[in-house]
Amino acid sequence: MTTIGFIGLGLMGSPMAVHLAEAGFTVAGYNRTPEKAEPLVAAGGRAATSIADAVRDADVVAVMLPDSPDVRNVLAGDDGVFANAKPGTLVIDFSSIRPDVATELARQGADQGLRILDAPVSGGEAGAKNATLSIMVGGAAADFAAARAVFDAVGKTVVHVGPSGAGQTVKAANQLIVATNIQALAEAVVFLRAHGVDLDAALDVLGGGLAGSAVLTQKRQNMRDGAFEPGFRVALHHKDLGIVTAASREAGVILPVGALVAQLMASAVAVGDGGLDHSALLRGVERLSGAPTPPERKDS
Amino acid sequence: MTTIGFIGLGLMGSPMAVHLAEAGFTVAGYNRTPEKAEPLVAAGGRAATSIADAVRDADVVAVMLPDSPDVRNVLAGDDGVFANAKPGTLVIDFSSIRPDVATELARQGADQGLRILDAPVSGGEAGAKNATLSIMVGGAAADFAAARAVFDAVGKTVVHVGPSGAGQTVKAANQLIVATNIQALAEAVVFLRAHGVDLDAALDVLGGGLAGSAVLTQKRQNMRDGAFEPGFRVALHHKDLGIVTAASREAGVILPVGALVAQLMASAVAVGDGGLDHSALLRGVERLSGAPTPPERKDS
Amino acid sequence: MTTIGFIGLGLMGSPMAVHLAEAGFTVAGYNRTPEKAEPLVAAGGRAATSIADAVRDADVVAVMLPDSPDVRNVLAGDDGVFANAKPGTLVIDFSSIRPDVATELARQGADQGLRILDAPVSGGEAGAKNATLSIMVGGAAADFAAARAVFDAVGKTVVHVGPSGAGQTVKAANQLIVATNIQALAEAVVFLRAHGVDLDAALDVLGGGLAGSAVLTQKRQNMRDGAFEPGFRVALHHKDLGIVTAASREAGVILPVGALVAQLMASAVAVGDGGLDHSALLRGVERLSGAPTPPERKDS
Amino acid sequence: MTTIGFIGLGLMGSPMAVHLAEAGFTVAGYNRTPEKAEPLVAAGGRAATSIADAVRDADVVAVMLPDSPDVRNVLAGDDGVFANAKPGTLVIDFSSIRPDVATELARQGADQGLRILDAPVSGGEAGAKNATLSIMVGGAAADFAAARAVFDAVGKTVVHVGPSGAGQTVKAANQLIVATNIQALAEAVVFLRAHGVDLDAALDVLGGGLAGSAVLTQKRQNMRDGAFEPGFRVALHHKDLGIVTAASREAGVILPVGALVAQLMASAVAVGDGGLDHSALLRGVERLSGAPTPPERKDS
Repeated sequence: MTTIGFIGLGLMGSPMAVHLAEAGFTVAGYNRTPEKAEPLVAAGGRAATSIADAVRDADVVAVMLPDSPDVRNVLAGDDGVFANAKPGTLVIDFSSIRPDVATELARQGADQGLRILDAPVSGGEAGAKNATLSIMVGGAAADFAAARAVFDAVGKTVVHVGPSGAGQTVKAANQLIVATNIQALAEAVVFLRAHGVDLDAALDVLGGGLAGSAVLTQKRQNMRDGAFEPGFRVALHHKDLGIVTAASREAGVILPVGALVAQLMASAVAVGDGGLDHSALLRGVERLSGAPTPPERKDS
Repeated sequence: MTTIGFIGLGLMGSPMAVHLAEAGFTVAGYNRTPEKAEPLVAAGGRAATSIADAVRDADVVAVMLPDSPDVRNVLAGDDGVFANAKPGTLVIDFSSIRPDVATELARQGADQGLRILDAPVSGGEAGAKNATLSIMVGGAAADFAAARAVFDAVGKTVVHVGPSGAGQTVKAANQLIVATNIQALAEAVVFLRAHGVDLDAALDVLGGGLAGSAVLTQKRQNMRDGAFEPGFRVALHHKDLGIVTAASREAGVILPVGALVAQLMASAVAVGDGGLDHSALLRGVERLSGAPTPPERKDS
Repeated sequence: MTTIGFIGLGLMGSPMAVHLAEAGFTVAGYNRTPEKAEPLVAAGGRAATSIADAVRDADVVAVMLPDSPDVRNVLAGDDGVFANAKPGTLVIDFSSIRPDVATELARQGADQGLRILDAPVSGGEAGAKNATLSIMVGGAAADFAAARAVFDAVGKTVVHVGPSGAGQTVKAANQLIVATNIQALAEAVVFLRAHGVDLDAALDVLGGGLAGSAVLTQKRQNMRDGAFEPGFRVALHHKDLGIVTAASREAGVILPVGALVAQLMASAVAVGDGGLDHSALLRGVERLSGAPTPPERKDS
Repeated sequence: MTTIGFIGLGLMGSPMAVHLAEAGFTVAGYNRTPEKAEPLVAAGGRAATSIADAVRDADVVAVMLPDSPDVRNVLAGDDGVFANAKPGTLVIDFSSIRPDVATELARQGADQGLRILDAPVSGGEAGAKNATLSIMVGGAAADFAAARAVFDAVGKTVVHVGPSGAGQTVKAANQLIVATNIQALAEAVVFLRAHGVDLDAALDVLGGGLAGSAVLTQKRQNMRDGAFEPGFRVALHHKDLGIVTAASREAGVILPVGALVAQLMASAVAVGDGGLDHSALLRGVERLSGAPTPPERKDS
């Protein structure tokens, strides 16, 4: 039976670790705030007292952390994963970080005899809780195959998209498309409202044609009701668009619309909407248009 | 049995008129180029010799024309529909035109005792041929109800979205969303390619999550193959974005991203890609990025 | 001595007509609101009772009106200039209108045996009062030469820039550059403030180098003080950017930045800043950045 | 007499060091490529063999290097300036680097008992050769006063704009304004050409009014002739806009137009125009507009 060390038991990591324990893996979870390990312990896992404790005997190390510097510290820092894992250990980083950092960490890990996969996810808290995450994986094909059982315990759509860093690149592209599609819908909604159209009827017919999208289906109610309880937070999407713009700049890829959407997402953070669902890009279009931005309604 | 006069037997209008004849309506079709009426005649309809001839005895007049000035001429011009139709005739304009022109023509028609609906469609030539168009209808509810049998003969999703002009407004919003979603996908594709990601695998995983859309499903192959046989032409989408920007300007709605996308679509026309499918926005991102834009492949 | 009919005695037209009277021309001025002619009468001119009355005996007709439809009505309308002017009359349109309308009116006027110049101005009310306007003139070289004395009485920099419509095209380009340079300065000011830089010192050094501009010199105080008494109104600049975007669209010229600036100017109108000086684009950047937008101070 | 150690004798640094020697300072210059010191030696200075050699006996250390990492290495690296300078030494960094890096290095330097000024310049090679640079200085007022004689030997406009980092912030704002003003002019030029206007006459009249700017005066000939010999290179301006966008992101300042201009500058690099003068943004507008982009002419 495979032994897993899981670092990072936050909103996403905790339910993922629980699913792994329930699937029969031996899971030792570590979080700086120890009580975050309680759901894992309740599911039959163990609360590790340090990264070293979680990693020492593991066949697989899973990491789920907020941002690039966090992952760098946990993997490559003093007394981190690279310093404590057995040679040959499979290290799966589920975090969303910069592709170049992912590539660099993969190289460092390989130098220590470890096998590294970047495996960012989409699907949010709901996907983590229901084990229905989409997982985009970068790294060696053999390592991907070896990690398959782990992925299947937490995700539904699991795809190997290329070498180290490729998973992060695809996640970045995902966030680019999602933000832009949200902005497109937001502009359309303000446009339709200003013309006195029946918004629900309009979105029904729009959703049935080439304008249809997961964003339209999942975010139309937020926009209609002005109810922006997350969901996925503006502040996190802003972080991700920082990754997109940096990675595109480095690669010489020009994103005229993506760069503008990144500014609008940054504006949402700047005006204080960072804690709302990313569909709150609607509020930015309303502000620009002098449209009445009703106070956010959470109880619709 | 209802008698229909159908003006405009082009790529869209011809198969629509045929469907109406096949559904049992008595259809008299008119087009400036008379041979365009042949499919309708083959389906049991009649080739009218003038607008007056098509309209004189009709209970319903249907119009399907390229642009606002065409519709204005055919409806309100000398010896046009308004001058020849019986009082009480239901006039259905399937064309995609400016909402303010639609509203103005509806008022003029009402002054003549006619009942006017704006009913632009989406779904393209395929939708017209298969009678699976989405139809977004503006006008009086009673007139919408009266036109229902006509709509059902040519469309699948038929929605009454508001008063006169509302159908055109929703169509404009549709074109705004579609263009922006295409641009988002195009930027993502160039981004992914530049990073050496497996594009098909990446689009599979993107399509399964919040980045999924009808655009991604229907246009990914064009982009992957650099094959841009239309489909829906850049030049037509450019015309429609002109409607969007004019209507938003008039309504005081700010479309920062939509306006930029409109420039990029205009650029596609300016560089000579106007006859390609609108997914050729990809080529613009490639040009900006100095990426090799392979010659268009039609035979993939 | 030349006789001039002057139509449109508003904020700009009135002092221009006065300068012409003072320069020794025989001036008959017409405005729908008759009392607007008082300054002209005080300067030795005559208040005409109709367009026909102003134009009938004139060698030169000057027009200064707000927008394209106004000019079209006054020139080509029933009982307008074209219907009443003597053959050979020189018609100078000082208004800022669409280049294509200017070209079309020039053609219509020529058909009536008239000689038409489009001669939009820059320099604002101050320039009109001080007879220091810049005048950009489109039309035939001989007509430009014939109008020289008139231009010299109201302007300082007078340039013949091409055939009919060319004056309007140059004015449109002027408004494009000015709006964009204002936006650039506005973004820089918010950027500098957010970093706690000494703004006056910074603008001193910026103004001395390649970042220097008439906009920086003339608008820095408005921005520093948050005092946006016009000057040139946002609402008028918005109208002019509508001309720019329409003319560029028609010509197949892509203005990625100009189109975005036009949206930001439209946003200023939409939120209620239309009556402020165009340097109030600063307030838009402040709103996007969540920066404190102090209430406008007029008394600094 | 003050002794100066000067690190970085490139296109900008070399003539600056020469001016300092000619002004009577004792100058020891260091460059990794030793022959770069020849002009300084010819002017009476000394070629140092290492950073330590240049810095050890200096009262003032001047640094002029390409980018943030270079400056960090030279100042804070092993055997760099901080490790070798006497306590109390005044360190003047003339390079254009990230404001946050400047601030951090100032703090590190202060911890070592040094006095640090960030003093980026504008005015280009010509300004360096003619000692007419504009210098924007961040740091303590007393240190600015102490450095005055040094600044006066190389620059013309020298302004203290705030605390550490403020100089870099103002330089970033400078690059933001310059790039945007260039883009505005480029869009206007393509617009004017497409309408067949006399470009020289048009630029004359534009330059005399509110559209006038140093960019218009200094760059109009490049654009008219399609001659883009630098001047200031696109690739360097691209680097600087990276600083602008990063610094604005960190400060929560939204630059909708600046971000788009940064993409267009990045596009110029991506398509291979990085070595041209930054006025080559014109070529991007021409490409988007399908306008004939003539091969660059250097010999006009």
